[in-house]
Amino acid sequence: MKSFFYDDYSDGAHNDVLKQLIDHNEEPQLGYGKDEYTEKAARRIAEVVGGNPSIYFISGGTQANLTILSHMLKSHEAVIASDCAHINNHEAGALEATGHKLVSVPTKAGKMNPQDVERIISQHDEYMVKPRVLEITQATEQGTIYSKAELKALIDVAKKHGMLVYLDGARLAHALTAQKADLTITDLPKLGVDAFYIGGTKNGALCGEAVVIVNPEIATDFTYSIRQHGGILAKGRLIGLQFMGLFENDLWLNLAKHANDMAAALSEGAVDSGLELTYPTDINQVFVTLTPAQVERLNVKYGFHVIEKIDDRRHVARLVCSWATTENQIRELIADMGSL
Amino acid sequence: MKSFFYDDYSDGAHNDVLKQLIDHNEEPQLGYGKDEYTEKAARRIAEVVGGNPSIYFISGGTQANLTILSHMLKSHEAVIASDCAHINNHEAGALEATGHKLVSVPTKAGKMNPQDVERIISQHDEYMVKPRVLEITQATEQGTIYSKAELKALIDVAKKHGMLVYLDGARLAHALTAQKADLTITDLPKLGVDAFYIGGTKNGALCGEAVVIVNPEIATDFTYSIRQHGGILAKGRLIGLQFMGLFENDLWLNLAKHANDMAAALSEGAVDSGLELTYPTDINQVFVTLTPAQVERLNVKYGFHVIEKIDDRRHVARLVCSWATTENQIRELIADMGSL
Amino acid sequence: MKSFFYDDYSDGAHNDVLKQLIDHNEEPQLGYGKDEYTEKAARRIAEVVGGNPSIYFISGGTQANLTILSHMLKSHEAVIASDCAHINNHEAGALEATGHKLVSVPTKAGKMNPQDVERIISQHDEYMVKPRVLEITQATEQGTIYSKAELKALIDVAKKHGMLVYLDGARLAHALTAQKADLTITDLPKLGVDAFYIGGTKNGALCGEAVVIVNPEIATDFTYSIRQHGGILAKGRLIGLQFMGLFENDLWLNLAKHANDMAAALSEGAVDSGLELTYPTDINQVFVTLTPAQVERLNVKYGFHVIEKIDDRRHVARLVCSWATTENQIRELIADMGSL
Amino acid sequence: MKSFFYDDYSDGAHNDVLKQLIDHNEEPQLGYGKDEYTEKAARRIAEVVGGNPSIYFISGGTQANLTILSHMLKSHEAVIASDCAHINNHEAGALEATGHKLVSVPTKAGKMNPQDVERIISQHDEYMVKPRVLEITQATEQGTIYSKAELKALIDVAKKHGMLVYLDGARLAHALTAQKADLTITDLPKLGVDAFYIGGTKNGALCGEAVVIVNPEIATDFTYSIRQHGGILAKGRLIGLQFMGLFENDLWLNLAKHANDMAAALSEGAVDSGLELTYPTDINQVFVTLTPAQVERLNVKYGFHVIEKIDDRRHVARLVCSWATTENQIRELIADMGSL
Repeated sequence: MKSFFYDDYSDGAHNDVLKQLIDHNEEPQLGYGKDEYTEKAARRIAEVVGGNPSIYFISGGTQANLTILSHMLKSHEAVIASDCAHINNHEAGALEATGHKLVSVPTKAGKMNPQDVERIISQHDEYMVKPRVLEITQATEQGTIYSKAELKALIDVAKKHGMLVYLDGARLAHALTAQKADLTITDLPKLGVDAFYIGGTKNGALCGEAVVIVNPEIATDFTYSIRQHGGILAKGRLIGLQFMGLFENDLWLNLAKHANDMAAALSEGAVDSGLELTYPTDINQVFVTLTPAQVERLNVKYGFHVIEKIDDRRHVARLVCSWATTENQIRELIADMGSL
Repeated sequence: MKSFFYDDYSDGAHNDVLKQLIDHNEEPQLGYGKDEYTEKAARRIAEVVGGNPSIYFISGGTQANLTILSHMLKSHEAVIASDCAHINNHEAGALEATGHKLVSVPTKAGKMNPQDVERIISQHDEYMVKPRVLEITQATEQGTIYSKAELKALIDVAKKHGMLVYLDGARLAHALTAQKADLTITDLPKLGVDAFYIGGTKNGALCGEAVVIVNPEIATDFTYSIRQHGGILAKGRLIGLQFMGLFENDLWLNLAKHANDMAAALSEGAVDSGLELTYPTDINQVFVTLTPAQVERLNVKYGFHVIEKIDDRRHVARLVCSWATTENQIRELIADMGSL
Repeated sequence: MKSFFYDDYSDGAHNDVLKQLIDHNEEPQLGYGKDEYTEKAARRIAEVVGGNPSIYFISGGTQANLTILSHMLKSHEAVIASDCAHINNHEAGALEATGHKLVSVPTKAGKMNPQDVERIISQHDEYMVKPRVLEITQATEQGTIYSKAELKALIDVAKKHGMLVYLDGARLAHALTAQKADLTITDLPKLGVDAFYIGGTKNGALCGEAVVIVNPEIATDFTYSIRQHGGILAKGRLIGLQFMGLFENDLWLNLAKHANDMAAALSEGAVDSGLELTYPTDINQVFVTLTPAQVERLNVKYGFHVIEKIDDRRHVARLVCSWATTENQIRELIADMGSL
Repeated sequence: MKSFFYDDYSDGAHNDVLKQLIDHNEEPQLGYGKDEYTEKAARRIAEVVGGNPSIYFISGGTQANLTILSHMLKSHEAVIASDCAHINNHEAGALEATGHKLVSVPTKAGKMNPQDVERIISQHDEYMVKPRVLEITQATEQGTIYSKAELKALIDVAKKHGMLVYLDGARLAHALTAQKADLTITDLPKLGVDAFYIGGTKNGALCGEAVVIVNPEIATDFTYSIRQHGGILAKGRLIGLQFMGLFENDLWLNLAKHANDMAAALSEGAVDSGLELTYPTDINQVFVTLTPAQVERLNVKYGFHVIEKIDDRRHVARLVCSWATTENQIRELIADMGSL
């Protein structure tokens, strides 16, 4: 079998997460997230974030994005987000299906800058949609992270225009544990983020994301929206238990850090082998620009996606590390990169 | 702790289902349902249903209903469904949020009759929505089942009007294993059901429903719709593995039959105790009409929901048995009913 | 040609309305309702209603209903309305297409009662949609009107539950000028109506409805919603000018009163001829229960719709009078009714 | 009063259009477009287009766009359209409010090229929306037109990918009568356009657009969609009569040609005055790049919109001519341009 670098959701659950499911499997619990484990996990996450936010659990990332955003918006309001935002490209029109336009902002290595956001918001008049939510992905879809100052600058533009801020945190743990990170989770409410989610699926859980709503006006009636879009599990315990596991002994941070470390080693190895990084490696994803022949050769032993073809000579390979990636896998891949 | 009769999703997973998750936890697999277990489970279900249907897995029942129905409909088309349909009452407007009206049909003990369906469809003209899908719940929300002949009569009305038929099978296994059942799963395609789902959540899984699309026109592009509504899990294996477990050695049928048997015993015991059944007990749910005082007394030791208050004297209690309900629980509850 | 009793939108415009279009046809004006006539008509209507409401013009009744209601609602919120509401039956699912469920209330002669409204709102829990707007049609679709006390009782139920109130006033002028009316337009804001519209199309205009938003929170951003649903005309003057005409010298009230008077005479004549009224005749519509043979005989000379077939013997004919209906038409029809 | 160059919907109706409304005002007619004038206008337009299309009338341009597009699409399908498309920018998210994403294509002077369309369609995979309709605006929002060969090339890309083609013809008459036009209306069905509309509002009518559906599959049930979105007028005669007027003696083409001629003279005058055209002047709109000071000076006597600010020195003024623009107005404006 190939060594897997496809993504960070190829493996099952981390053992400490699975153990929760096994240990509590035979206890009857109330449905729809009213079980004691969901409540315990919610309390724990609220403590970690600080500032008394409301916590909810949703089955997956697209569900989280579409439910939170549509709940934040009135029918004529729109989302401003990056041109490479997952919700813009890879969720099959999930946001628009709830009736809302997404206006995209150009990016460099996955990141928006405040000037572009300002310009695009300012171009809107009464004949257009009304920009209402700025969505920021942290870490970005291209494996980079915003510094605290960069986040602040983006959020300040939104706030200046009376907008709300939503942060897609599918890989938030990876952003917080990146080597160059200067951000902690308690910063998010302080910076003005109104709602965000902490990804579980890409960080050791079988499924599930933890939604954190900082702004109490958004929390009003939010359970109706979760239910309406089918994001709640009847056996809510499935997600509650997994987040209980993830938030014990900082497991969520440790798993992400491991994935980052593996990617950092791989990135360094790729550069040493003379390969070109497409984007800087901030978190657990390494983007390398390869020739089609190089892709073909690597593909024999390694599983990964080519996510863009810049031209006939330059194809962008995405190599993703996860909590389950081993040093051996990295060493072997680097060795094979050396002989490309 | 109270003895649980709240619902059939209070417990964790059946051991044979959980075992699949544990046994295959450490194998890397492709994401989004392209793993080998999902494919194996899909093949197995297709064999069981017969006639070469397309199989998909979706995270929950509301998700399944809203995704299948909205995929079957054009924007001006509507669903005809029973007035007590789950999608009509208990999914927070999930269908309407996808843009479609539900026109309701009166029921008796949860069941529609063909005359009412015919009348309601016929009342529609060009100024109204266009009825396009007849939704039938089998077993119904009030714990009853349609006989094969009754199903055929309903489906024939729909087909006569050029409509499609969708069956909400959250408790399909219970309907198939009911004592008075004369229906097998292979009958569904033959009767003209275009799409249905086989519930996992209420029958021993932690989450997940298996969608069966019989009509190939509906299967076209269906994965786009699943993704758009966020019903697909990145770790699709979570559902695939569980259905692999459920469809080994007829586990899904055996679990449902056990739940039905427990309910049958309970129902009989209730009648022997002089209590009045609100609806006949066909499957795993017993509806009993109690006084508020009786409710209060039973509630001390038993957990259950009062789902309707007919008047000040008559409250409807729903007592649900599951694959995990024990004979001891039933015996004890019957004994306490006797002394009400 | 048949004598027309089909509806109240069979004729062109009243001459005083058409004259406005002709007189000002050659003046250039700003588009999208920023012309001076639209502004003048808006000011005039605001004065007539009192209490400083915001006024908007929308091209038609379905447009008005769907735009106002969807603007009042968040995604998980629903409308409570009568089972014979136009928006429930004859707008092809317009409300649901904006993502919202309508929960219907039974009616008698087109009217809801507060007990039913209370009961239906109270049945809603967190698993269902959230009732947010009570829609009342005045006059009703079955030609009856609510008294001021009846309106107050309905509105009070809504307010008690923290809901908003919207009034569909396609035939509001007819309700206000009905013989038994005890309501003036200045009562509506005082009673707690948050938004309503004054119908133009069915009362002498070629098109157009005047939307009155009493509650300033609903007025916020309302122009975005009008535009999004295409209810604004580029040549907004078309509607503005017509409403200028309608609100000069109480034309809108006089036209409706004429239509009511014609219907009152017709209704009396029908009863004198031994025919049975299906509903009381409060405004400009007369509902008569006829045999199929009687329908056929009347149909030779008179154009009207059979709107319901109670059974094989009893068909409900709707005979609508308008501002353009003449006494001669009425006299002739009564005479022919006498010889049925 | 300023001389109006704001847009082509500042005036009332052309006299021959208004005359139809006046002449037939007193005849009773069936509602909802079943009147004889609507039917006559529809037959006439079908003859002019050729090939037996279905004709419908809708109240305005946004209505036409949103109704046709949403009727053409299933829920997971998207529109490919130019980045300056009216539906993309100036309809307040009308398309997205029906649940569909618009994917934009870069333009030069308002026009897309087939290579970009091909590239963008090809980038779509199963994780994204499914491109289903290519929308082309003819004439474009920047006052340019596609040649027949250019249209063919765009349409061929769409057809190669199994897509449908919709043409927004708000100013179709202007495109057909442009000096450099090589296209006739009968070409549209032959080139593969599946549906389009012929604008009335911007070409001499008070309101109304004529929708032409070439592809019979799209025509199925289209009246349901018109009604659902409120685009039908109860007094359908209002639009039918106006289009009867527009299609008598080629009035629609003559009015557009006049507007184009006025703009051509103005464009030439601007160039002669040393001003820079932002885009070539193909139809009735002249785009001139001015300094803010020049804008201010012209604004004293002339009404027009600045539609873009390229930078502090270069503002784009849009000067629109209409069927009602006079040679005197043009002469005067040119003279004043000369002294800027």
